[in-house]
Amino acid sequence: MSDRLDAQFAFLMEADKLKQVLRATTLADGSRPENSGEHSWHLALYALVLADQAGPGVSIDRVIRMLILHDLVEIDVGDVPIHSANGAAHGSDETRAAEAAAAERIFGLLPDDIGHDLRALWEEFEAAETPDAIFAKSLDRVQPVLHNLASGGGSWTDYNVTADQIEARVGQKVARGAPRLWDFVRTRLRAYFPDI
Amino acid sequence: MSDRLDAQFAFLMEADKLKQVLRATTLADGSRPENSGEHSWHLALYALVLADQAGPGVSIDRVIRMLILHDLVEIDVGDVPIHSANGAAHGSDETRAAEAAAAERIFGLLPDDIGHDLRALWEEFEAAETPDAIFAKSLDRVQPVLHNLASGGGSWTDYNVTADQIEARVGQKVARGAPRLWDFVRTRLRAYFPDI
Repeated sequence: MSDRLDAQFAFLMEADKLKQVLRATTLADGSRPENSGEHSWHLALYALVLADQAGPGVSIDRVIRMLILHDLVEIDVGDVPIHSANGAAHGSDETRAAEAAAAERIFGLLPDDIGHDLRALWEEFEAAETPDAIFAKSLDRVQPVLHNLASGGGSWTDYNVTADQIEARVGQKVARGAPRLWDFVRTRLRAYFPDI
Repeated sequence: MSDRLDAQFAFLMEADKLKQVLRATTLADGSRPENSGEHSWHLALYALVLADQAGPGVSIDRVIRMLILHDLVEIDVGDVPIHSANGAAHGSDETRAAEAAAAERIFGLLPDDIGHDLRALWEEFEAAETPDAIFAKSLDRVQPVLHNLASGGGSWTDYNVTADQIEARVGQKVARGAPRLWDFVRTRLRAYFPDI
């Protein structure tokens, strides 16, 4: 029992480092960059509050579990923003390999049974093939849009993002799991992107 | 639909402010105070990882939902630490009334059906009478202990906390919902509190 709890707490202390990983997106008021720990909390709250936007067969509790875990690999790899000078790195083979190695190390801190279950949930999120993972990914993509809208442009302005890029990098992903959500957000985006 | 989504997003933007509420506890490395948004994420992860410490009849998914919501009232009231110069305010009638008013305002931003459900979950957590709420409270009390242990004393040193105070303010609450967890943590506490 003691060895098991030692491993559980070693993982929870390691996870604390996610609070120091900074994202390209700011808080809604633009005052500072958001960190990946508080971002993960906010997304879990999104899932609770926007459950009525999920398609049939989606388990909100599984979505919440995925969102709690989804960024842990950033402790080793850092955040790889979709709008940035280094945007091509997002989803590249190299980034995926680094994230898989991070998952091996970080989930490997846990007792085998727990580590196996949590890693499987993270892999399901990454693969974005199940209804739960597709909805979770939609929330992950839509949250920064709301922050950029609230803070006056944020990373869109910093990187001269175009309407086509927003549609390709964000819109298609949000619409895949939450089509009415994207319709709603798109009407707000016209203030920044008249052609969207 | 549009009015409903307007309300859901107004709530989610308001919730963003929880990332700016600072706690008495630091990150595990002592580098800065923890905020209540990232704290709520960390606790949800505690629930996932320490599910095997929950008693019979506990639903970990309900515990996670409670922990995601549990500190939202701090947007209006701030964090009221148990170890502080103002420690008597924790759980006082005045603090409880302020938190109830905050819950009225914040959950009131949501569409009625969602606001009602989430507020009920927060009230269940606060009342600490159901197995789910009791376990959630145990996790909320044990997490700062681990950070103080990791960072060399933290708020215990700042406020000259005694072994008796730790037992009364922390130990009894943790042991109520997760007795084996408290046994385990207490052995680590002896480095700071030889009499515990």
